[in-house]
Amino acid sequence: MRIVRVNHQNDVFYGILEGETVARLRGTPYAELIKDGRVYPLSDVRLLAPVEPTKIVCVGKNYKAHADEMHEGQPEEPLLFLKPNTCVVGNGDGIVYPSLSKRVDYEAELGVVIGKMAHGVRPGHAKEYIFGYTCLNDVTARDLQKSDGQWTRGKSFDTFCPIGPWVETELDAGNVRIRSVLNGEVRQNSTTARMTHDIDKLICYMSACMTLLPGDVVATGTPEGIGPMQRGDVIAVEIEGIGTLKNTIV
Amino acid sequence: MRIVRVNHQNDVFYGILEGETVARLRGTPYAELIKDGRVYPLSDVRLLAPVEPTKIVCVGKNYKAHADEMHEGQPEEPLLFLKPNTCVVGNGDGIVYPSLSKRVDYEAELGVVIGKMAHGVRPGHAKEYIFGYTCLNDVTARDLQKSDGQWTRGKSFDTFCPIGPWVETELDAGNVRIRSVLNGEVRQNSTTARMTHDIDKLICYMSACMTLLPGDVVATGTPEGIGPMQRGDVIAVEIEGIGTLKNTIV
Repeated sequence: MRIVRVNHQNDVFYGILEGETVARLRGTPYAELIKDGRVYPLSDVRLLAPVEPTKIVCVGKNYKAHADEMHEGQPEEPLLFLKPNTCVVGNGDGIVYPSLSKRVDYEAELGVVIGKMAHGVRPGHAKEYIFGYTCLNDVTARDLQKSDGQWTRGKSFDTFCPIGPWVETELDAGNVRIRSVLNGEVRQNSTTARMTHDIDKLICYMSACMTLLPGDVVATGTPEGIGPMQRGDVIAVEIEGIGTLKNTIV
Repeated sequence: MRIVRVNHQNDVFYGILEGETVARLRGTPYAELIKDGRVYPLSDVRLLAPVEPTKIVCVGKNYKAHADEMHEGQPEEPLLFLKPNTCVVGNGDGIVYPSLSKRVDYEAELGVVIGKMAHGVRPGHAKEYIFGYTCLNDVTARDLQKSDGQWTRGKSFDTFCPIGPWVETELDAGNVRIRSVLNGEVRQNSTTARMTHDIDKLICYMSACMTLLPGDVVATGTPEGIGPMQRGDVIAVEIEGIGTLKNTIV
């Protein structure tokens, strides 16, 4: 099932994407999926980011080949950082190139959407807390990330977390192809099977520290092939079984 | 004026603390302060954290003497990191000592509460976006902060951000005494005048990256004298002109 969040004539709501129509839901989709009976043609709505996270919890260097290309060792345990929810934009929205940076990179990632409050999740049980999966671009001002040492500022500019186009609730996410495509040219091309720490491990590890809330997003790391974008570029994150998240640098 | 957020018989609301009574407000206090006419004895309510931030934006090593005691250089520009809102607790709440850490430190800080959406604030104009000031304890699992390199995990455990007891809206925060007191013994004792980057600079710098929203909190860094706490300890953050934020390690 594909869960969307849409704007229809300035009315914002969650829905289920069924072919070319959107079946409107009551409230958020996490506790219960209740259709309210109204259906809209997809062409009449604008897709928004399909989630409203309180936080995005991210992991660094979670694909070995990416850690290698950064000339950095791979941490034995997941290396966590946060992006604030003010970063989030949806499919088709612009990524604003900040004047403070001279190098802004794409990072294609699988986003895991949390469906119920998760704290101290035990190994093997993370699935019970997962609502679904989406495409995510962990946009990074690489120069600021490096010069600051702490990654927060380089990762936290407004518009630096495109998410979408929808949340797929029925994916088996353990081995799906993940690619980024810059102006039509494939730049990253890997599979989620190459994560060092798998989704179950990540959610257990994160929830041992901070409570994850419904709608929160876990960004699972990016494979090798990252690189810079320029104003006017179109960047797509494609994940097999989910779809394509496309944004323009403005 | 002292703005509180309270629980009265499971009814949660903002109010103005007037002597020994709380005058209830309609909604949040940021856009307008509207008393709804109901008044409660302070003894009948429980004080909660006086804010509901979407994020807490923090700055590292913003007092020179603290950077010195950490044997670290002081960055020329503010060094930013985030704490998620799942860390926030109020005055009197417990700070939970995580089993994952062997060293949990207090860090007394002045918290600045944002009153209106702030993006790209120009130097000299930060005051226009400030709602008020509060006491904040940037609790830190020092061992995990160091071993991870990225500070996120060591700073983000649930209960690691006591805030309160209220927000003081009329403070001149440029030179007020800030202390931490552990089990009755003064451990940190400085003044906000010793910040390297002042509040105006911090808000300009942060808002050049990410939009700050009403209720968001800026943590302005901690002075020298940080140190570990043990289970059962009582830690107080005292700021002149605001009050005392007291929590027990549990």
